[in-house]
Amino acid sequence: MLHFFFLFSLLLTSTHVLAQDFCVADLEGVFTPSGYACKPESKVTSDDFVFSGLGAAGNTSNIIQAAVSPAFTAQYPAVNGLGISAARLDLAPGGVVPMHTHPGATELLYVVHGRITAGFVSSSNAVYVETLTRGDIMVFPQGLLHFQISASKRPSLAIVSFNSPLPGLQILDFALFANDLPSSLVEKTTFLDDAQVKKLKGVLGGTG
Amino acid sequence: MLHFFFLFSLLLTSTHVLAQDFCVADLEGVFTPSGYACKPESKVTSDDFVFSGLGAAGNTSNIIQAAVSPAFTAQYPAVNGLGISAARLDLAPGGVVPMHTHPGATELLYVVHGRITAGFVSSSNAVYVETLTRGDIMVFPQGLLHFQISASKRPSLAIVSFNSPLPGLQILDFALFANDLPSSLVEKTTFLDDAQVKKLKGVLGGTG
Amino acid sequence: MLHFFFLFSLLLTSTHVLAQDFCVADLEGVFTPSGYACKPESKVTSDDFVFSGLGAAGNTSNIIQAAVSPAFTAQYPAVNGLGISAARLDLAPGGVVPMHTHPGATELLYVVHGRITAGFVSSSNAVYVETLTRGDIMVFPQGLLHFQISASKRPSLAIVSFNSPLPGLQILDFALFANDLPSSLVEKTTFLDDAQVKKLKGVLGGTG
Amino acid sequence: MLHFFFLFSLLLTSTHVLAQDFCVADLEGVFTPSGYACKPESKVTSDDFVFSGLGAAGNTSNIIQAAVSPAFTAQYPAVNGLGISAARLDLAPGGVVPMHTHPGATELLYVVHGRITAGFVSSSNAVYVETLTRGDIMVFPQGLLHFQISASKRPSLAIVSFNSPLPGLQILDFALFANDLPSSLVEKTTFLDDAQVKKLKGVLGGTG
Amino acid sequence: MLHFFFLFSLLLTSTHVLAQDFCVADLEGVFTPSGYACKPESKVTSDDFVFSGLGAAGNTSNIIQAAVSPAFTAQYPAVNGLGISAARLDLAPGGVVPMHTHPGATELLYVVHGRITAGFVSSSNAVYVETLTRGDIMVFPQGLLHFQISASKRPSLAIVSFNSPLPGLQILDFALFANDLPSSLVEKTTFLDDAQVKKLKGVLGGTG
Amino acid sequence: MLHFFFLFSLLLTSTHVLAQDFCVADLEGVFTPSGYACKPESKVTSDDFVFSGLGAAGNTSNIIQAAVSPAFTAQYPAVNGLGISAARLDLAPGGVVPMHTHPGATELLYVVHGRITAGFVSSSNAVYVETLTRGDIMVFPQGLLHFQISASKRPSLAIVSFNSPLPGLQILDFALFANDLPSSLVEKTTFLDDAQVKKLKGVLGGTG
Repeated sequence: MLHFFFLFSLLLTSTHVLAQDFCVADLEGVFTPSGYACKPESKVTSDDFVFSGLGAAGNTSNIIQAAVSPAFTAQYPAVNGLGISAARLDLAPGGVVPMHTHPGATELLYVVHGRITAGFVSSSNAVYVETLTRGDIMVFPQGLLHFQISASKRPSLAIVSFNSPLPGLQILDFALFANDLPSSLVEKTTFLDDAQVKKLKGVLGGTG
Repeated sequence: MLHFFFLFSLLLTSTHVLAQDFCVADLEGVFTPSGYACKPESKVTSDDFVFSGLGAAGNTSNIIQAAVSPAFTAQYPAVNGLGISAARLDLAPGGVVPMHTHPGATELLYVVHGRITAGFVSSSNAVYVETLTRGDIMVFPQGLLHFQISASKRPSLAIVSFNSPLPGLQILDFALFANDLPSSLVEKTTFLDDAQVKKLKGVLGGTG
Repeated sequence: MLHFFFLFSLLLTSTHVLAQDFCVADLEGVFTPSGYACKPESKVTSDDFVFSGLGAAGNTSNIIQAAVSPAFTAQYPAVNGLGISAARLDLAPGGVVPMHTHPGATELLYVVHGRITAGFVSSSNAVYVETLTRGDIMVFPQGLLHFQISASKRPSLAIVSFNSPLPGLQILDFALFANDLPSSLVEKTTFLDDAQVKKLKGVLGGTG
Repeated sequence: MLHFFFLFSLLLTSTHVLAQDFCVADLEGVFTPSGYACKPESKVTSDDFVFSGLGAAGNTSNIIQAAVSPAFTAQYPAVNGLGISAARLDLAPGGVVPMHTHPGATELLYVVHGRITAGFVSSSNAVYVETLTRGDIMVFPQGLLHFQISASKRPSLAIVSFNSPLPGLQILDFALFANDLPSSLVEKTTFLDDAQVKKLKGVLGGTG
Repeated sequence: MLHFFFLFSLLLTSTHVLAQDFCVADLEGVFTPSGYACKPESKVTSDDFVFSGLGAAGNTSNIIQAAVSPAFTAQYPAVNGLGISAARLDLAPGGVVPMHTHPGATELLYVVHGRITAGFVSSSNAVYVETLTRGDIMVFPQGLLHFQISASKRPSLAIVSFNSPLPGLQILDFALFANDLPSSLVEKTTFLDDAQVKKLKGVLGGTG
Repeated sequence: MLHFFFLFSLLLTSTHVLAQDFCVADLEGVFTPSGYACKPESKVTSDDFVFSGLGAAGNTSNIIQAAVSPAFTAQYPAVNGLGISAARLDLAPGGVVPMHTHPGATELLYVVHGRITAGFVSSSNAVYVETLTRGDIMVFPQGLLHFQISASKRPSLAIVSFNSPLPGLQILDFALFANDLPSSLVEKTTFLDDAQVKKLKGVLGGTG
């Protein structure tokens, strides 16, 4: 029989070697350009690596009839420093994920069920639109305007993943109409009519 | 009425600005450390960004009762240079995705349906195992040994994404037993018994 | 007197060491995710590293009374692979650089002369607007919507730099109204009125 | 009239998503390999993104008749984590920015007014020197020795940008002669004469 | 004689410029995805940059007759943030560094003395094995299974370097047999026989 | 007995998955910012991964009594794209590796035998010098001026590694005196005396 007892001397040396396999975020800790400080490895459990928050449908009883449920660092601290994250996208019939960008990540969408028309516009102004069915995937390059809308009479579900734990999310209408960016500036920089801007500022709660 | 005609002068200047929004792979082209040469943008269509190959179940009528269908650069050239990719994982009841690593990417798994027991082992030798149900996600940090097995009496389906278009896939048993790595080297470096190595070399078609 | 003759033996060895100090783009060559293939070092001259195209004012006799002159890889091949580029921004009185993003880079603006009101909107929808005078700099984080407008009765000039040789440029109005993205999709995903969309499609030459 | 009230449910979800659009440095906070800890987003204002310190000419009443005014993280905390920074370069007639390197960034120089002779030496020992006039830009690849000298009878002004918030600055003469690096080591490793080394150590305040 | 006195005005400005030349780890400080917080530069001395722990042979009086002595961040804090580290590898005659991976780095091995048979297996299952003698170097790409064994009747010594300060180290046998990963899971995911698994779990102290 | 025959169906799928484990340089192929085009994997052999060129001492019968033998991409194509390389450093008694920088990499030095005094100067002008003996390692941060000199009456040998396959090498004296950079420019930008510059230009073969 082999005596591997001595092998442990190597093992012991190894355990002194701190590896950076993962860095589960300490959301109360320091936040840096590379992400959050790490929770001590001794406090990390299997549960940290699993997130069940995408299991339930988001509430689509709203005007856009859509819901986006993120699993970014704030919701799922295990992805801190790992360069990946996800979100769940629910679309009721007629649902719309409005025109938006992710400033910090490329997105890959997978249709779990239903039928979704999705598209993005490139820097050179070309339009890429496709209608996706169950099992299709589509990629949306980093930082480009894109959207998803229901193309089904039944609920649609998609799971999207990002190559960053903090992809960001800039929804065009919110950026233009739901804050205190003065209407005059919006109009000058978008060529939208005053009435249009004021109308959308009104419904979205923007001021100025 | 506004005359935006002159705006086009800006537009024209802009179209001379080559952006690198995406780089759909020319699989017949040059391969470099950053990926494949790009297909000319003029030949890129919406269809390039959609991949339907994950829509159909893989064939699980094999001994592991599992199938992995990749959407890496080779299958889905649009992800070239975009830092993301995906794969479909089908598990029949009793199915197993054997112990493996992805040398080049972190993996994020989403359970579409069924029930899957998954786990990984860290550099400091800790084990993180969980049983996942529909809608759960789990993250497997880059380069670490991990596995997935069916925990259901019905077929299970998961979609995994990676933060690289070329994550790589090193299946432990194939690396050890399905090539010409001499049995004596396998035995010395894994402490497996000669009979065990020869048996698995036999069934996996390895030599030496 | 020292005889450094033999030092040349070291020098000679060194010249066989290919360094990657720079990679002036061969714009006719292969394009990859990391940029263009490099022009042979033997053909690179001092002139390659200098670009004079930002010396002359762009033509602001257009409806936006503004002009953007880029020095990206296409205009200035020396920046290929070096992670930096620049552009010149001319604003006549009343001039506007419309709402836009750079999907691939952070921008730093320096006001050479004049007075410019500039701003950006963050992912969490906050607005950061400032009026800049000669010598001021302002930073616009990667991928976020931003704009610049003249705040002077005289011409204003700014030089912007980017931390990528290919920052991209997505002008909101062009992305929405100057291509064949169907009006119905624009309306559904932006909540703009049909009349507004059709009007801007009209002046910007969009179809659909 | 549209009721977008419900859209806010999506907005509210979104605001829980921490994005990493920017990370204004907390200069009193932790310093890590990726930069400083971030100031809380709630304390960030528009003013943080603007820096006026490059607006005034540096004092060139010194022996080199030149002044470099940096806008790196220490002066301009907004660039922390954003991969960009800037500096102002004033050259009186006869002014010289001595031979130096930036170990951590590529530099791009823009001549605001005046006339500047600038150059760098590559790893393969080639010399690239050019005389630049108003509006010219020149790029200096990361880590290479370079210099700028006045080529005008009037003051010259240049703005330089870097693709790092912490480019570093190693001035050759200071590195060799303005510290306690022993003269004997300087002489052995540079082949400069003892008298030359001692003379420059003397005027630059070096010891040893 | 030159009066360089005024040069100091430039110098003084420069010393206010914090560079990030290095970031010696404060091992008691915050740990982030980019590494440890930096020790204040004022407390950094020459000694921090030198590590003598690889000077003495590791103890090879163990069953594998091999010892690996790391100089990773934990042992050698100067490499924090610098993207490099090293280790010493001692092999007695018959010594074996068992099959393992480094999830976070490529390894380059240099044979100081002796004779070593080393190899790795690629993602596409190809085997690359070579016997190395004094002065040879061999590279092991990131994340792939590899091993080293003595090919000499005398002690062998190798120095390995990694392109990360935290390369990680996952030893196959420890990952499978030296923890509480249930035997049934090991067997299902590796196809090893129950007796084999139990035997190795026994000698390596694993449970389950 | 297990029938693993069907496992091959998975294997076959896998082999269609191109991984980017490595990218042995095709030195006759395209050169890009990320390195050389890859040699086809089918032509890669074990021999590609081994380099014996560091096994023999460099010729130190020169004025600096030192020799640097690189194993960069040009000599050792296997490191292309892998982020690592090495070099051998031979120092006769009295030998000197003159003041130099590596613009593209951090260096880690290991003393194989002998005694070496090594040092570097930081951006903030601090000097870090140490005398190293057998087995010591020392790290030289990217882009900073550094040197190594013999501190022994016998030959010394060091192996250095870099975290780039193309670290570059800029030797101060060659950059200043061994090319056609005009003496007047050298003098103005280094404050060296005319006689000193002319003398070194003379021995190093520089012109101008």
